[in-house]
Amino acid sequence: MNRSGPLRIAVIGAGRMGADHVRRIDRVVSGARVTAVVDIDAGRARTVAAGVDGCTAHTDPAAAMAAADVDAVLVASPGPAHEAAVLAAFEHDLPVLCEKPLTPDAASALRVMEAEQALGHRRVQVGFMRRYDAEYVQLKALLGTGRLGRPLMLHNRHRNVAGPSFFTSSMLISDSVAHEVDATRWLLGHEITAVTVLRPTPSEGAPVGLADPQFVVLETDGGALSDVEIFVNCGFGYQVQAEVVCERGTARIGDGHALVTNVAGHWGGTIAQDWTDRFAQAYDDEVRTWVDTTRRGEVTGPGAWDGYAAAAVCEAGVRALEEGGRVEVDLVEKPALYR
Amino acid sequence: MNRSGPLRIAVIGAGRMGADHVRRIDRVVSGARVTAVVDIDAGRARTVAAGVDGCTAHTDPAAAMAAADVDAVLVASPGPAHEAAVLAAFEHDLPVLCEKPLTPDAASALRVMEAEQALGHRRVQVGFMRRYDAEYVQLKALLGTGRLGRPLMLHNRHRNVAGPSFFTSSMLISDSVAHEVDATRWLLGHEITAVTVLRPTPSEGAPVGLADPQFVVLETDGGALSDVEIFVNCGFGYQVQAEVVCERGTARIGDGHALVTNVAGHWGGTIAQDWTDRFAQAYDDEVRTWVDTTRRGEVTGPGAWDGYAAAAVCEAGVRALEEGGRVEVDLVEKPALYR
Amino acid sequence: MNRSGPLRIAVIGAGRMGADHVRRIDRVVSGARVTAVVDIDAGRARTVAAGVDGCTAHTDPAAAMAAADVDAVLVASPGPAHEAAVLAAFEHDLPVLCEKPLTPDAASALRVMEAEQALGHRRVQVGFMRRYDAEYVQLKALLGTGRLGRPLMLHNRHRNVAGPSFFTSSMLISDSVAHEVDATRWLLGHEITAVTVLRPTPSEGAPVGLADPQFVVLETDGGALSDVEIFVNCGFGYQVQAEVVCERGTARIGDGHALVTNVAGHWGGTIAQDWTDRFAQAYDDEVRTWVDTTRRGEVTGPGAWDGYAAAAVCEAGVRALEEGGRVEVDLVEKPALYR
Amino acid sequence: MNRSGPLRIAVIGAGRMGADHVRRIDRVVSGARVTAVVDIDAGRARTVAAGVDGCTAHTDPAAAMAAADVDAVLVASPGPAHEAAVLAAFEHDLPVLCEKPLTPDAASALRVMEAEQALGHRRVQVGFMRRYDAEYVQLKALLGTGRLGRPLMLHNRHRNVAGPSFFTSSMLISDSVAHEVDATRWLLGHEITAVTVLRPTPSEGAPVGLADPQFVVLETDGGALSDVEIFVNCGFGYQVQAEVVCERGTARIGDGHALVTNVAGHWGGTIAQDWTDRFAQAYDDEVRTWVDTTRRGEVTGPGAWDGYAAAAVCEAGVRALEEGGRVEVDLVEKPALYR
Repeated sequence: MNRSGPLRIAVIGAGRMGADHVRRIDRVVSGARVTAVVDIDAGRARTVAAGVDGCTAHTDPAAAMAAADVDAVLVASPGPAHEAAVLAAFEHDLPVLCEKPLTPDAASALRVMEAEQALGHRRVQVGFMRRYDAEYVQLKALLGTGRLGRPLMLHNRHRNVAGPSFFTSSMLISDSVAHEVDATRWLLGHEITAVTVLRPTPSEGAPVGLADPQFVVLETDGGALSDVEIFVNCGFGYQVQAEVVCERGTARIGDGHALVTNVAGHWGGTIAQDWTDRFAQAYDDEVRTWVDTTRRGEVTGPGAWDGYAAAAVCEAGVRALEEGGRVEVDLVEKPALYR
Repeated sequence: MNRSGPLRIAVIGAGRMGADHVRRIDRVVSGARVTAVVDIDAGRARTVAAGVDGCTAHTDPAAAMAAADVDAVLVASPGPAHEAAVLAAFEHDLPVLCEKPLTPDAASALRVMEAEQALGHRRVQVGFMRRYDAEYVQLKALLGTGRLGRPLMLHNRHRNVAGPSFFTSSMLISDSVAHEVDATRWLLGHEITAVTVLRPTPSEGAPVGLADPQFVVLETDGGALSDVEIFVNCGFGYQVQAEVVCERGTARIGDGHALVTNVAGHWGGTIAQDWTDRFAQAYDDEVRTWVDTTRRGEVTGPGAWDGYAAAAVCEAGVRALEEGGRVEVDLVEKPALYR
Repeated sequence: MNRSGPLRIAVIGAGRMGADHVRRIDRVVSGARVTAVVDIDAGRARTVAAGVDGCTAHTDPAAAMAAADVDAVLVASPGPAHEAAVLAAFEHDLPVLCEKPLTPDAASALRVMEAEQALGHRRVQVGFMRRYDAEYVQLKALLGTGRLGRPLMLHNRHRNVAGPSFFTSSMLISDSVAHEVDATRWLLGHEITAVTVLRPTPSEGAPVGLADPQFVVLETDGGALSDVEIFVNCGFGYQVQAEVVCERGTARIGDGHALVTNVAGHWGGTIAQDWTDRFAQAYDDEVRTWVDTTRRGEVTGPGAWDGYAAAAVCEAGVRALEEGGRVEVDLVEKPALYR
Repeated sequence: MNRSGPLRIAVIGAGRMGADHVRRIDRVVSGARVTAVVDIDAGRARTVAAGVDGCTAHTDPAAAMAAADVDAVLVASPGPAHEAAVLAAFEHDLPVLCEKPLTPDAASALRVMEAEQALGHRRVQVGFMRRYDAEYVQLKALLGTGRLGRPLMLHNRHRNVAGPSFFTSSMLISDSVAHEVDATRWLLGHEITAVTVLRPTPSEGAPVGLADPQFVVLETDGGALSDVEIFVNCGFGYQVQAEVVCERGTARIGDGHALVTNVAGHWGGTIAQDWTDRFAQAYDDEVRTWVDTTRRGEVTGPGAWDGYAAAAVCEAGVRALEEGGRVEVDLVEKPALYR
């Protein structure tokens, strides 16, 4: 690849996750567009495709991938359908972003790996999106500096307000703790060698028969422990927290604060050094909103009256600075256009 | 307007701010592209334009705006050049996003307002980007609910590590406090009626002769007070904080935590209710990074080996859940492709 | 003085504050006892004195101070009565702890100073108790190290749920802000040279006619500014916060956290280095409670069963450590004495 | 008992802990005094006893307890000596506060329980002082309200800067985790039924051969899990944290903040409602310090000059409030006595 135009993507699966990715590629991310949407439910595929200029709807992933205007595939169908979709993409040698899990079990994941090895190059990325979360990225970077020493333990909390009605006890592991499995492997750079699952008395807030919460202990080939509280019916909110305990300090994320460390007698975090750190997202959102409203022919942001009022107040402020005392601000009457 | 294609933007000013906006429109924001870059320094305009497909370079704003492929204008030139650029845009009836200040003084801002009124509709948005910051937006929304009662006071802190070398004492007001002037007007919905500026002994960390820090008190036509500590050579970091004191509680932003309130005997904040709140940005960054690396023909994210390892660990975890005790994880040897 | 026995104290004033000091000296503080209680209301004096072994009741401060068994005087009567009480103590050359204010106005305070100078040595301490608060003490100590540089500004918040019904607008200054006046002088080591009071529109939560909140700006002979938000009907809680802004960093107390600093790119605080720091108060409270309950012939704390259960669990724990795996704890049946 | 005079205490053990308790009873806690100090090292007993008026030194606990002026016993000798000391106290039917552990193993603890049952009433309290820590007390009280529902899990962190040189791997359980064993039993009101100890690779900051850190999982007869990270050579500070996870929310202590909860979409804590909550300790410390300095014939606190300056500033403040504008403060020259 290395095309100058936008990346043309076929999205497989038009459920909640797939539709959200279509929106994301269409409205948020620059440099890409959705050219095909695939779902076994033809109506759902058509509905989602209809929202995007030049996007076609399909029920067969292979047919979509065979189209000339597809450069890459995003797989967001249910887990059991992933293997077939990824292998189909491999047949066309197309890059794939596959939502987690890659496949529902190790045996099928091995088949995907074998097919990719047969291609001779890597083509598939798995949707472990925590690796892209700013706080996890900060934590990973801090561990990389070695400043805290070697990691010994990782404490994880993973709480949902309420689990989906179809959730089973084992899905707490395979659907939810799967995220901490990847986070543990990625943050520590270790493979996991053993798993223990402890079951406290279930919460009365969980459906009858569901083992919720659970407490999972992961052991790694680097000698570290990673424990996970998974509680999918905690009732109060969605919380994902992680604390790494290293030889010379600890670091914690997910507390509302960004990264907080304990090291050398001090707890705390870092302060932004520049407005570009603090307000980068605000600038992006400002320009994105301006582009969107302008395309609709609207003006919704602060306008000329706001620019004028600020200028008048600042003029008074500079006089107050230079002359001392209290300076009144004198504004013209607000014109009708700005009311 | 209301075109189906991307918004075609002429960016006026190719300095730090302008170049950053060009990058933002080109790489971050969907639905727009930069078709013209203007700078009085022709070389700088060419350099910035060269990074964008199909973008032309100009030294004259009016010439750029006259081009057929320009739908909107973003003004990021120095403040004294804003009036002319905005008036030129008005001549072509083009929407404008104008970096703050709209113009450097009230008289020129009045001229812009008059020109816009002559157009008969609003065309210009001023770059007060704090109105798009997630924390300020939360604070504004909370005030709008009336839950805290009427706002009485607003305490602001605005601190920079070190000011630019050309900063004068009055620029602390007109360049820096200008943000709090707009934030005060917007958050409270009041106009400012008087300004007092107090000068503590200057910090030895500030250049000789610079009145830094300053303490500014703004009075509003709603009877509220807004005080601003402005300290552009604080040495330790960039911090923007605001605390609104209302009749029944207070709300504070900029502390590292998101919005923190004091109300009815409790301090604290809200917890996300869904993973889409907590990880929205991570999903965006995941897909954006995948698009970027895929266009370059690279695979940098978690791959099939990571998907396989997670599946194998989760299988062991489900067995541990069902059978009790500790279950070992058995991975195949890692293939060369994934090392 | 320098007696081996306990300090024998006459408490002047048996209202809320005085009665609380009597309780404190009798039950909390070692090395002192209350030998006389004085109140113009003879019944109130008798009631409070009756709770203390060997304590007499009086209506005349001078008579109480003349008694042989009085070594020192604690003045907790209303402010207008302070001058006479302190001068009477001076006549007997007795040390005085006088609740704030020393006297209600500067002229009477001058007379007290003159009387004390006539004695030739210092005898009176004023009850500015914030100088003894752990967080203020930490803040003062930090300023003393010079690590943050010279203080430039001090931001204070002083909020009460609801003011007393007799509070007037000027009492917000003389009763409430009086604390910040002393805190500013003490923390900064400066005298205050000028005062400005700003009045936002009063809160609807305040009694009609009361100027509440107020915003007070104090200027000091060291060139620093100290601003005070005083809000005695804030409705939500009692909060006293202070933030010092220095040349190289800031330090803040009263936020629920202990002292939090911003310095050199980091925010945060210190971690206790020893269990004696973290649990000093718990040890004091444990022994105090044990003494109190033992004197009443009771045992209320953890008992032998708790000691046994802990020993049994720790034994199982040591076996689990040494042998690996899960070790069950085997407790005897709980004897009736411990149920 | 129920004596009007102070409780007369024999302290057994004059090491670090015993000497600290002697200081506490002598200087901090009212209503008690130390009348005997016992240590097998006669010199150490004499040294500690010498600091207290009317206190005798002994090497034999039984002899000390036989004295007429002993009402109660505090045992702070090494653990293996506890059984004999407590049994001796029982012979005199004296109340005992015994430092943890009650005895080093379950068998000896059973013997103590049997002896106490033979007395027919409870006499011994074990020194689990966390039950007196303000944050633990708050947490216990919150659990008691039922507001969070039934507790399901308890996560504990227990970190020391560096363990004593004589610490063995099993002492991490029997000396350190012993606190969490009691805290778990007390907070949850459950007995512990099984223990598992996991050993990550030891920290390089720990002495060679010491299994530090350890991760301990306690199961309870109420179906709850309590996990404990014990890390006695963490290097950065002393930290004791506990988080209870209940059916409807969580509550956490030990984070620097006081109690922080997650419940119903909100995180946060409570705000003091009165200055007596916020400054109770400051008042105690003020009066304690004044008593101590007064007994030494010194005046160290804020004096008449401070009272005068505050009065003068408040007078200016009231004028500023009433008249508006800035009012200067006019102080007399500071007299020599106050410099």
